[in-house]
Amino acid sequence: MSKQFPTRAQDYSAWYNELIVKADMAEHSAVKGCMVIKPYGYAIWEKMQQALDKMFKDTGHVNAYFPLFVPKSLFEAEEKNAEGFAKECAVVTHYRLKTDPDNKGKLIVDPEAKLTEELVVRPTSEAIIWNTYKGWIQSYRDLPILINQWANVVRWEMRTRLFLRTAEFLWQEGHTAHATREEAIKETEQMLEVYAHFAENFMAMPVVKGIKTANERFAGADETYCIEALMQDGKALQAGTSHFLGQNFAKAFDVKFANKDGKLDYVWATSWGVSTRLMGALVMTHSDDQGLVLPPKLAPIQVVIVPIYKGEEQLAQISEKAEQIKKSLLAKGISVKYDDRDTQTPGWKFADYEFKGVPVRIAIGPRDLANGTVEVARRDTKEKKVYAMDGLEEQVENLLNEIQQNLYQRALDFRNANIHKVDSYEEFKKVLDEKGGFLAAHWDGTSETEQQIKDETKATIRCIPLNNKQEEGKCILTGKPSKQRVLFARAY
Amino acid sequence: MSKQFPTRAQDYSAWYNELIVKADMAEHSAVKGCMVIKPYGYAIWEKMQQALDKMFKDTGHVNAYFPLFVPKSLFEAEEKNAEGFAKECAVVTHYRLKTDPDNKGKLIVDPEAKLTEELVVRPTSEAIIWNTYKGWIQSYRDLPILINQWANVVRWEMRTRLFLRTAEFLWQEGHTAHATREEAIKETEQMLEVYAHFAENFMAMPVVKGIKTANERFAGADETYCIEALMQDGKALQAGTSHFLGQNFAKAFDVKFANKDGKLDYVWATSWGVSTRLMGALVMTHSDDQGLVLPPKLAPIQVVIVPIYKGEEQLAQISEKAEQIKKSLLAKGISVKYDDRDTQTPGWKFADYEFKGVPVRIAIGPRDLANGTVEVARRDTKEKKVYAMDGLEEQVENLLNEIQQNLYQRALDFRNANIHKVDSYEEFKKVLDEKGGFLAAHWDGTSETEQQIKDETKATIRCIPLNNKQEEGKCILTGKPSKQRVLFARAY
Repeated sequence: MSKQFPTRAQDYSAWYNELIVKADMAEHSAVKGCMVIKPYGYAIWEKMQQALDKMFKDTGHVNAYFPLFVPKSLFEAEEKNAEGFAKECAVVTHYRLKTDPDNKGKLIVDPEAKLTEELVVRPTSEAIIWNTYKGWIQSYRDLPILINQWANVVRWEMRTRLFLRTAEFLWQEGHTAHATREEAIKETEQMLEVYAHFAENFMAMPVVKGIKTANERFAGADETYCIEALMQDGKALQAGTSHFLGQNFAKAFDVKFANKDGKLDYVWATSWGVSTRLMGALVMTHSDDQGLVLPPKLAPIQVVIVPIYKGEEQLAQISEKAEQIKKSLLAKGISVKYDDRDTQTPGWKFADYEFKGVPVRIAIGPRDLANGTVEVARRDTKEKKVYAMDGLEEQVENLLNEIQQNLYQRALDFRNANIHKVDSYEEFKKVLDEKGGFLAAHWDGTSETEQQIKDETKATIRCIPLNNKQEEGKCILTGKPSKQRVLFARAY
Repeated sequence: MSKQFPTRAQDYSAWYNELIVKADMAEHSAVKGCMVIKPYGYAIWEKMQQALDKMFKDTGHVNAYFPLFVPKSLFEAEEKNAEGFAKECAVVTHYRLKTDPDNKGKLIVDPEAKLTEELVVRPTSEAIIWNTYKGWIQSYRDLPILINQWANVVRWEMRTRLFLRTAEFLWQEGHTAHATREEAIKETEQMLEVYAHFAENFMAMPVVKGIKTANERFAGADETYCIEALMQDGKALQAGTSHFLGQNFAKAFDVKFANKDGKLDYVWATSWGVSTRLMGALVMTHSDDQGLVLPPKLAPIQVVIVPIYKGEEQLAQISEKAEQIKKSLLAKGISVKYDDRDTQTPGWKFADYEFKGVPVRIAIGPRDLANGTVEVARRDTKEKKVYAMDGLEEQVENLLNEIQQNLYQRALDFRNANIHKVDSYEEFKKVLDEKGGFLAAHWDGTSETEQQIKDETKATIRCIPLNNKQEEGKCILTGKPSKQRVLFARAY
């Protein structure tokens, strides 16, 4: 197998696009801006879903399902939210097609089947959900409501990229309702921690936890918390958000509850989500010029076993051993594939599994059989070692843990090496162009300044880190006083 | 807890609707024809998904995801399929809303954001998937493709009922591609077996496996296999279908492959699906006038433990024991809830869990503590028995299996008692009106006869059972010769 594709240094963007397609993760579809998630990519997404779903349930949440469509009158109820998403809404206006009288075999929209009220394909579900919660909440006894939904959403994008920005994407969206402001903020923060834990411990992707500025806040939120990651090209990527929605949606949909004293108050809300965008983040955090690199915890195949043989008899002997090894690894909960196809050479297989990011490859040849050994190659460092077959399953288990750790540490070192303190606008622009990464700079706290910097440099404030160090300084653009550095970056 | 609702005898349809809502399974949404699946209902659906997904994977299938939207030109490519679904398609015509200049705070569809080609919200995905497969298949080496998708689909329905018929519903759709006709038929039949196994062994719902007549066939299929179940009101319900699509979609989308001899041929296809409709079937198969009855294998809570106590001290003693029992049941993989809320009486809790269909209830009072016993009540027969705490977990495990078996047997007895042989059209109509159920009758094999019977009686041919007994007879309507009885019924 030979998959020619650009190196990261040659063309990072082309490297990413071709990697996604050639590794069979996803491809563009016939529908402008929508992707097909192929089985190998979807298997990674399923692993993400499983891990996240368990974490949501462990923190007391349950799943439910709300409609795909939002009637326009509900959609526009929370004005800021509506304004924020109106420009990218797919709108259903008709509910029937009919035969084209002028063109046999073709269909046209039936003008008589026009909806009296248009339906928006959900770009996010706050509106439909809060309209539903209104019927569920009367008293404090009905609270909290802790619901998550796994769903598809549509945001019409003009410029799309596989996983990173597509018109339709898959995600989960949590929507919770609380009796007090404090409880809602606690929930918002808890889910940010869940996302950070997932990013760091499953995706092996370090993240900065922080708060968005008003410019970058979710439309309809009082506060948006986020996790921000750094990609290998020095651009940032927002990997998850958790919103404190205050009473905005409760007011828009008139959702009140009677507290213990019988007094009516509006309900407090949060929402939080991560999406298939994480797939793009995963690829761009670890992969290299030889293809995908997957952290073991999210790899659909953690170990592949490849036989090196001449003739049927040798294959039979090797296969017997390989099946034993496979069984002992499966018993440890490790996912294993034994690839004994005779249509491909071992070399082709090596290259293919390397390209697909399989963390550990075990090769067994006749000499290994004689010696009671196998050759073990790890994808992250490309090191090869000879291991004894005895106790191999423990060795492999340890190796998988080591790879998971190593990927995280490597990404963390890279991230930390790419946070640059800058103290003037000149330095800011120079470092941004020459090095990229996160730029820790003083800012006067105004939206106007942030906007001007964005217009002039394409860099935005990714977040104000949580527990940020307080220090006196001057805004790089206006020279006005500032009490802390914030993180700027160009972002996906 | 008191949930007044109609008995089945009083009004079966109202009984069903109110049961679904009052048991917190689902409710109607603000979007006409679309439902909200509430957490308790969704938890059952998740259990269904898990069991089915495992069976799909065990038979070699993988999951993937294809776009929600189908461009109209693709949608109309397979003419019969397009014709079959055209009348119930939600159509996206615009991709942006804008502020209404005449009405501050309101939005209107932006006429400048009209799509050049309308997008159909998928009612089923054959079109978009076969257009994608075209790019994946060149030679026999690319076959078979064995893909499943979990997704939402939309079919605009005028008259809707929760779970049974909704404009949007959740389902899985398998779409496979094969090199030979034989292999595709084998796949179609295999998936029918998977569905039947799931229905009978997880849902405890007996089904008849059969083949649809041309009138009832999936639009675009050469043959539709189905499983048909009988509800308590004597109406049939199609619980799953598996379609042999021949080369229809391969021809519509020009998907050819080179066989081993290098000759080009069209690819053979199947598709198969089950949906949230199964939730309705589950409810109508087992539930009674006291509420839901759930088979243990699909019950979100299999065992509930309720303490009967006076005062904090007694509660503390009972709770200690209850937590031990809970732990021992969890260790057996049984899902348990210990409900020690002090806001509700034991009686209220008993009624509530009965209504929610929890298969086994364990009550522990002070006398039980003294005697080393508990009271165990089963939901299916409402029997109560006193069990020793010693070895309780095995007893409960056995009881859950027994309940699962009993529900199946009960439903099977009911179904078998409601297959009626009829030999004249008069008898057919009489039995249909008075007893309902499946009517095994001779039919001349023509679509016209089937249509006339449907027009006159609202009964359709549910299926021609697999391995059907061959016998000479005369069509009940036309008197023409017939070689086998087929199953008629009124259906959901």
